[in-house]
Amino acid sequence: MRKIKVGMLGIGNVGRGTYQALEMNHDLIAEKTGLDIEITKILNRNPDKDRGIDIPKEKYTADVEEILGNPDIDIVAELIGGIEPATTYMAKALSNGKHVVTANKAALAANGPMLAALSQEHNVLLRFEAAVAGGIPILNSLSTALLSNELSEVHGILNGTTNYILTQMSMYGKSYEEVLKDAQEKGFAEADPTADVEGLDAANKLSILISLIFGVSAPPDKIPTRGITSVSNVDIEFAEEAGYKIKLLGSAEHIGDKVYGNVEPVLLHASHPLASVNNEFNAVFVEGNAADELMFYGRGAGPLPTGSAVLGDIIDIARKIEKESAYDNLSRLRYDSGSEFAGEGSSKYYVRMAVPEKSGILGKITTIFGEHDISIEVIKQEADEAIGEEQLVSLIVILFDTEKSRLMKALDAILKTDAVHSIENIMRVETR
Amino acid sequence: MRKIKVGMLGIGNVGRGTYQALEMNHDLIAEKTGLDIEITKILNRNPDKDRGIDIPKEKYTADVEEILGNPDIDIVAELIGGIEPATTYMAKALSNGKHVVTANKAALAANGPMLAALSQEHNVLLRFEAAVAGGIPILNSLSTALLSNELSEVHGILNGTTNYILTQMSMYGKSYEEVLKDAQEKGFAEADPTADVEGLDAANKLSILISLIFGVSAPPDKIPTRGITSVSNVDIEFAEEAGYKIKLLGSAEHIGDKVYGNVEPVLLHASHPLASVNNEFNAVFVEGNAADELMFYGRGAGPLPTGSAVLGDIIDIARKIEKESAYDNLSRLRYDSGSEFAGEGSSKYYVRMAVPEKSGILGKITTIFGEHDISIEVIKQEADEAIGEEQLVSLIVILFDTEKSRLMKALDAILKTDAVHSIENIMRVETR
Repeated sequence: MRKIKVGMLGIGNVGRGTYQALEMNHDLIAEKTGLDIEITKILNRNPDKDRGIDIPKEKYTADVEEILGNPDIDIVAELIGGIEPATTYMAKALSNGKHVVTANKAALAANGPMLAALSQEHNVLLRFEAAVAGGIPILNSLSTALLSNELSEVHGILNGTTNYILTQMSMYGKSYEEVLKDAQEKGFAEADPTADVEGLDAANKLSILISLIFGVSAPPDKIPTRGITSVSNVDIEFAEEAGYKIKLLGSAEHIGDKVYGNVEPVLLHASHPLASVNNEFNAVFVEGNAADELMFYGRGAGPLPTGSAVLGDIIDIARKIEKESAYDNLSRLRYDSGSEFAGEGSSKYYVRMAVPEKSGILGKITTIFGEHDISIEVIKQEADEAIGEEQLVSLIVILFDTEKSRLMKALDAILKTDAVHSIENIMRVETR
Repeated sequence: MRKIKVGMLGIGNVGRGTYQALEMNHDLIAEKTGLDIEITKILNRNPDKDRGIDIPKEKYTADVEEILGNPDIDIVAELIGGIEPATTYMAKALSNGKHVVTANKAALAANGPMLAALSQEHNVLLRFEAAVAGGIPILNSLSTALLSNELSEVHGILNGTTNYILTQMSMYGKSYEEVLKDAQEKGFAEADPTADVEGLDAANKLSILISLIFGVSAPPDKIPTRGITSVSNVDIEFAEEAGYKIKLLGSAEHIGDKVYGNVEPVLLHASHPLASVNNEFNAVFVEGNAADELMFYGRGAGPLPTGSAVLGDIIDIARKIEKESAYDNLSRLRYDSGSEFAGEGSSKYYVRMAVPEKSGILGKITTIFGEHDISIEVIKQEADEAIGEEQLVSLIVILFDTEKSRLMKALDAILKTDAVHSIENIMRVETR
């Protein structure tokens, strides 16, 4: 049986999950593929730490060269995370003619094109299924759909922590702070939750999806990104009454020769398949010009699901090594640094305002929206609840398609009257 | 640019969709893959028929040998449907060294192992993405998940017509007959809906999924199959009150050394991702020992979505031809004729009975279930509604896990008392 040797950089959560997934399924994989895959070396300085799995001590090394410069090792699995030293290690592995598998979205978002170019130059493979949506085989799935379809849009629930928070807020009426605290106590959210709740993690993943699907370079810091901290229970309740669910969505759309995209909380109609993706689950929804709607659902995080995706990439490469088939990086990371990544297009919008509790307010607001050629789908005033000392109440509107700039002009005009005290929240309503 | 020539057998709905998908995306495919794919010949006796697309007449031929025996043709796309002559044509194509793509679930369910063996013997590829769930790239998706995971179960909404009917019954309270008639008038259900509503189409697709996922031969006529004709609005309402949706599910599970499977209407908890798959959409849900839950969602029928899957297979083969990589039928159709395909395991159950409107009924029924060691989750009597002249009312129970045989014994015992007039419906409750 052909032996394939893997060197693993790092043995944190994902490394552990990968090691464990291979341990569980080694024999099954051997039976199905005729390949004996073994993780022979692991870069880590602490072989004595209890990781809950049984790893022979001789596999550990503190010297990265024992992996990167080891002629026996076919595939390097980079599972350290962070931009450096991960990028340097991957670059070295590729230059040494080793195939690389990574789950590192930050390094890919920062240095993906350089690494992709290196892999092509040295005729080796660079795979990163685990970097986009954990255990969901989305890159593999897209490789078929991508080729037989022109994909016009992609929408993803790409962060499990925020989806968990929004789901719990919606299901049990708990406040954002309450659910976050709860999630932190369960070890489910980080002590510093910024990367999750501000949408930065989702932006990293969307960046990779955009470059794969549209062949356009979209550095995460160029993607307009907004997290879920502005979403209140009032918004969730209002939205649900009107038939919508609020989700943190990474979205991109190809219109004409531009790609529009962002990460932000949006209102999704309850009948949208993404609206039923709950708790820590992730999903990616695409629309093809032939296949129409497709959605891929699964666990976006967790040691074993993510390890499953890393292992899938390893097997994929191992089979190509065995068959000695030509390596093909096609549609895996197509960066085009000349392309421009633009802001957002037109959309339906949800706006929540704080308004004084007096008559004539609705008339003024609807008149100004009308003057700006913006049509109203739903308008609703919450009579029961007063905000602050000024006797303010919440008023929400859901507006038919409009450009953001036009909306902002109308809201400016509205703010100049005495009809509205303040704009409390603006969210896109995603339609299909 | 390398030219790949495709001969198409049949130009019905799927053929039209495939031709159209290629027409729409030919240039994009050429740009992405460097391949110039052309459908050069089409088997059809009626080149003059208006198909709503512009096909040059010289592509048509009435002689199948002009395709099967044509040395210029690389790939044969069999889109005639039905078991014969499709099987004979595919066998001939494979024997002549041509790769074959098909959307024909009936021919595969009947003759899949023979065709798979032929493809291996002649070192050509046999692909059938479109046969399982229309436009959903499920076989491609499973090829990663399948290899890095042991999959323990699969559940699919595999038939769009029945899912449409159940969704409409649930959403608008319309009767089965009403929705079916409506669907037929819209050309959405066949004049003879048997294959759809009796679950036969779903059983064909489940048969292919079982052989792919579990490597076990499961001829459709050995799969216990029950359609949706027994599902009434009363069942749907009761189920929804208790928090469930009724869906026609094709399910298979690997327990010990046996595979259990069937096609039948089941109750799914509303939070199950399959419960939100509505109208004509399909989805396949699997559980892996590493990836955990995965679901793939999309259009299970329609010319363009199905054509998209056929085209995906064509591109996949074309790329392998171009790269001259070794052909690999692995995990595409693994039949093991020695394996046994068994009935069903234990499950939660939903039972609706017609009972006389008098006191003491509940006590008798619960006592008998107790004597058979079956625990009750929900029991509910519909007081308002009388069935027939005998003053009968509906009573439903949802029972915790039990084997079907034990349930049937308990129901037998219950029927022997005067507590129950008749058993009106029995459905499994699918849990996860």
